[in-house]
Amino acid sequence: MNSLSLKKIAAGVYTAKTGDKTDGVLSLVANEPKIEAINNNYSDAPLPFDGIFTEKVGNKTVVCIPRNLSERHYGPGLRFRSLATNFSVLHMRCDHYGGSDNGRTHVPTPFYLSDAGYGVFIDTPEFITFYMGGTVRTDAKNPPEEQNRGRGPWSADTPSEFVEASFEGDADVYVFAGESMLEAVAKFNLFCGGGARIPKWGLGFWHRTHTQFDENDVKNEIKLFEERNFDLDVIGLEPGWHSNSYPCSYEWDEQRFPDPKEFVSSLLKKDIRVNLWENLFVSKKAKIYEEIMPFCGSHKVWNGIVPDFTLEKAREIIANQHKKEHIDIGVSGYKIDECDGYDEWLFPDHTSFPSGRSAAAVRNTLGILAQKNIYNAFRKENKRTYGLVRASAAGSAMMPFCIYNDCYSFEQYLTGLASSSLTGCLWVPEVRDAQTPEEWVRRFQMCVFSPMLMLNAWANGVKPWKFKEVEDTVRETVRFRKSLLPYLYNAFYTYAEKGIPPFRAMCLDFSGTGSQKRSGLDHTESPYETLRLFDTYDQYMAGDSIMVCPMRPGEKTRKISLPAGEWYDWYTGEYAGSGEMLQIECPLEKIPLYVKGGAMIPTVEKDGSLTVRCYGNSGSGFLYDDDGESFDFENGKYAYCEMSFIKENGAVTGKIEKTRGDGFVSEYKAVRFI
Amino acid sequence: MNSLSLKKIAAGVYTAKTGDKTDGVLSLVANEPKIEAINNNYSDAPLPFDGIFTEKVGNKTVVCIPRNLSERHYGPGLRFRSLATNFSVLHMRCDHYGGSDNGRTHVPTPFYLSDAGYGVFIDTPEFITFYMGGTVRTDAKNPPEEQNRGRGPWSADTPSEFVEASFEGDADVYVFAGESMLEAVAKFNLFCGGGARIPKWGLGFWHRTHTQFDENDVKNEIKLFEERNFDLDVIGLEPGWHSNSYPCSYEWDEQRFPDPKEFVSSLLKKDIRVNLWENLFVSKKAKIYEEIMPFCGSHKVWNGIVPDFTLEKAREIIANQHKKEHIDIGVSGYKIDECDGYDEWLFPDHTSFPSGRSAAAVRNTLGILAQKNIYNAFRKENKRTYGLVRASAAGSAMMPFCIYNDCYSFEQYLTGLASSSLTGCLWVPEVRDAQTPEEWVRRFQMCVFSPMLMLNAWANGVKPWKFKEVEDTVRETVRFRKSLLPYLYNAFYTYAEKGIPPFRAMCLDFSGTGSQKRSGLDHTESPYETLRLFDTYDQYMAGDSIMVCPMRPGEKTRKISLPAGEWYDWYTGEYAGSGEMLQIECPLEKIPLYVKGGAMIPTVEKDGSLTVRCYGNSGSGFLYDDDGESFDFENGKYAYCEMSFIKENGAVTGKIEKTRGDGFVSEYKAVRFI
Repeated sequence: MNSLSLKKIAAGVYTAKTGDKTDGVLSLVANEPKIEAINNNYSDAPLPFDGIFTEKVGNKTVVCIPRNLSERHYGPGLRFRSLATNFSVLHMRCDHYGGSDNGRTHVPTPFYLSDAGYGVFIDTPEFITFYMGGTVRTDAKNPPEEQNRGRGPWSADTPSEFVEASFEGDADVYVFAGESMLEAVAKFNLFCGGGARIPKWGLGFWHRTHTQFDENDVKNEIKLFEERNFDLDVIGLEPGWHSNSYPCSYEWDEQRFPDPKEFVSSLLKKDIRVNLWENLFVSKKAKIYEEIMPFCGSHKVWNGIVPDFTLEKAREIIANQHKKEHIDIGVSGYKIDECDGYDEWLFPDHTSFPSGRSAAAVRNTLGILAQKNIYNAFRKENKRTYGLVRASAAGSAMMPFCIYNDCYSFEQYLTGLASSSLTGCLWVPEVRDAQTPEEWVRRFQMCVFSPMLMLNAWANGVKPWKFKEVEDTVRETVRFRKSLLPYLYNAFYTYAEKGIPPFRAMCLDFSGTGSQKRSGLDHTESPYETLRLFDTYDQYMAGDSIMVCPMRPGEKTRKISLPAGEWYDWYTGEYAGSGEMLQIECPLEKIPLYVKGGAMIPTVEKDGSLTVRCYGNSGSGFLYDDDGESFDFENGKYAYCEMSFIKENGAVTGKIEKTRGDGFVSEYKAVRFI
Repeated sequence: MNSLSLKKIAAGVYTAKTGDKTDGVLSLVANEPKIEAINNNYSDAPLPFDGIFTEKVGNKTVVCIPRNLSERHYGPGLRFRSLATNFSVLHMRCDHYGGSDNGRTHVPTPFYLSDAGYGVFIDTPEFITFYMGGTVRTDAKNPPEEQNRGRGPWSADTPSEFVEASFEGDADVYVFAGESMLEAVAKFNLFCGGGARIPKWGLGFWHRTHTQFDENDVKNEIKLFEERNFDLDVIGLEPGWHSNSYPCSYEWDEQRFPDPKEFVSSLLKKDIRVNLWENLFVSKKAKIYEEIMPFCGSHKVWNGIVPDFTLEKAREIIANQHKKEHIDIGVSGYKIDECDGYDEWLFPDHTSFPSGRSAAAVRNTLGILAQKNIYNAFRKENKRTYGLVRASAAGSAMMPFCIYNDCYSFEQYLTGLASSSLTGCLWVPEVRDAQTPEEWVRRFQMCVFSPMLMLNAWANGVKPWKFKEVEDTVRETVRFRKSLLPYLYNAFYTYAEKGIPPFRAMCLDFSGTGSQKRSGLDHTESPYETLRLFDTYDQYMAGDSIMVCPMRPGEKTRKISLPAGEWYDWYTGEYAGSGEMLQIECPLEKIPLYVKGGAMIPTVEKDGSLTVRCYGNSGSGFLYDDDGESFDFENGKYAYCEMSFIKENGAVTGKIEKTRGDGFVSEYKAVRFI
């Protein structure tokens, strides 16, 4: 048993190594931590506990992190069924989500939160198991009392003085202390490099075409969208664009795309970007096959060889090929598929890799290193990219990629949105299909307040007008998303500069929004009576001020919980309530939205004018802007404007004033405060 | 890469060590292998493959077992959703079944079968991962061709030349070669000590009373059963009999059971045995607490200390206490609960144990060592026991315990029956409750052809007459079970002497009864098109000759598959078919049963006479008998009778003749052939 001595490295940020040979994910990813942003924006909170220690058991290192018995925990990792994790045992491993929140997930980042206002991050690329406060040591100082189930009442849960975590090798342990969980998350995100800088076009309307489409099919599809007034920003090409896929060649199928450069240019002329699907398993037919072979592992996936992405040389071969064949002709980004696993569709845990790193380490970092590789390739061209990926890890915050998966459950997609904010990544609840017109609309609506509005027709070739009776509603939903651009762009600015996630679980902004529920004792369904923590995931925050309460398909009314503070109806501007539960109805055309009193929400009209929606009697806000596609903002090419308003006798008087930056890039035709 | 040199140790049985430091489960359990039975009954088949090898990767040993690309695999481990396992990745770990066949199971025995007629067993107590023929090495001699998903058709599966398995430390590798999978299973079971010798009373009617019952409640319950003519053989007491449970004291609650000896005796006078529930986590209130403390692990479970069952001393303390407090006063056996995990309700993987063995090794052997301990305690008294347990491992065959769990799915309980025969254990689909009278009956019927007919009312206090309208049917179902005693006792004799499981998956007796099914390509449900092997689990063999085709609740008709050979209807004796599919109807009172032509099924009538049911025109069979409760059969105190019959003009002429053994224990009033 070795006590671990944590040293301060930024305001309220502490770290220690469990041993000398650490090989953390952050060091592999090499994002620059935003120490200054942490120090400038947040408190210098003390270490939230004493007595953290490690021990070696077999070939595992165990870290024991003290906790109060009543602390509520969130994470580690991206989850799809619940947020709070007390008493869970989580075997974290990068994998496709398999229907239960057991640690196998697309983003198994070993970072968890406590509602006492801190986060703990154990930086190792190895598989790591977390025992979230339910393991009682025989030598515990403060053990729970024995119970007698034969003379109930009895609970199966045994609160422990420690969260315990075990893994092979050594790790860097970090504690992010603050005055709230939000502060802890923000510090973690800033430490990982700050939130991603999304290009403006990335916040528009995405559509992925059928996997068998050729150049003409895509152009015809675009024409159909134009005729129907669906304004596309990004077209995604699925596996069929490759000359070989599963495994992949990364080269254009010459029959389908005889002139890729002309194809991409012609789309760019229409202001439509091209995003390319790929997986990371290399086909014999790829031109890079022979060159990358020496940097690949001992086992294949889908008969393709598997590059060791922890090797710079392997990444470089791919980046060079991508630059030449895709980026230089105007491709805007990638969808990096299949890097998460499902176990059966990945290399075994005993695969050898040329770096000498374990298969676990390669697996857990495959997604984040592939993202970083793409990000860097665009960065060198002073271009922002935006894309999709199915696996990530620590360091995700900075990466302009959304996590997606194949579970396609409305409820679980919604939970993913809340959970992503607790684990430093972006999650997209893409639209693929629907059984009813109502479901179709509700799924589009969920995407409006998400990092990406995307229709994914790779398999079924579905169009937004699938259901005639709601075609107009879907069109208006897409337009609504586009009108929110200034507000969403603000939110991503805050993500980058302050580490605050753009879409957030309620528990981050409002502590104590969860509940406890005792599971029933039941001899056929659940023979253990347990006390479980539940947290709100069916409403969430988008940006500073909007609370989104999605309607589920089939739902005519729903309950919403308004936290303390003044809340206003988005549509009417009327006062809605404070600190209360409401039962609301909502027509299909609308998303239930509530806005904080005093908020100013900048939106853009079809004619290019700016409308700032003001809620309550007075308030303030800001508007951030830049060119939306380069990194020139780093050299001052941006505008940060402060805004304020007063409402008197129903009339709004607003002000907007640039206070920082060298330019106001968007030329808004007019500015209106309502 | 080290090639592994397998040495023959019995007819068609081969073994090798992957290294010097093996600590196999079989050596911990110390069952006597029945080498003579293997040699006398089975073929001296050659090794089914060349080129098995091992390698060390990190701290894992990898074993690569060659296979033909077309081999079909079953196992490892007890499963609940499907039998065939090709392409699966299975992280074997003793655990409660969690809804998917991913390797976490009550019986994670690392033994798998090939339809080429062999089984492979890797004897290690550590967690072990199996890659069931889907992992393609980069240096494969015979790799599958690359496919192109962009130009379908495409399958996600990549058949491999190897099954690969990885684990920490070293292991004994065994190959059981034969002319069929049944032979391979039989050899494995005999090598593990042969099938369990169940006492006759164990094949009767079991009922577990409500957990809060005291002595009088139990006696009153028995009276009710007598009044309703439900003839009980075993009463199970649930946690409330302990002075403390969860964690456990193993001592009688003095208020509820002031005179346990008198209580148990009074039941024995009625020919009713008492079975005691327990878990393995020791309460401070237990008299053995101080004594066993030095032999316990570093973490508690439900605030109880956890004995290291790999230590003889720990087992001895428990066995002595059990002998004195329970066995000596006539208790017949135990239900050993909670030894499987659920992860949250077990010790963490980094728990230290005084034996120095890993937590994995202790976890994986907890169930089997607890069984062996109980078995030995009764063996010393020349008494057979029979009970329940929620976890087991290699060596299970010999243990008179049934595996059970909490999933309570009719379909999955049925699958468990088939699967148990492939992994060397007994599985019981106990009755706990039902939504409808029909389900109630169908669940009892499934138990008739299972190792144990048990109603488990621990939580709800349910009685067999829960549904008045089917009370008679349930009563007749219980009587039917009891009438089958001679036939079931024969089946268990064959299990013990020849290793043939009493209840068997169809694929063991009839190869090629499975099918292949291509999963649909679907963008929302299943984005991978895969070829999966399916095997029949909804009909199964019971004993030598009966095929059971259970009706599911809600099913009015069902399809059955009659394999090649002559099949007869159990009830009418009429010829039913051969090698064909039938669509059958079946009234609620009946279980669809088909009997092999030439079979003789001994049954016992209510008046104590023996009726031998003869199917087809002529045939033969046997009848094994002994005292049903001791091990005196080892000293010749048994009777083995050969039987034969001829049917002419509808009249059956039968013969029965003792050919081995010193006694014919049961005094049948009469013997009748029909």
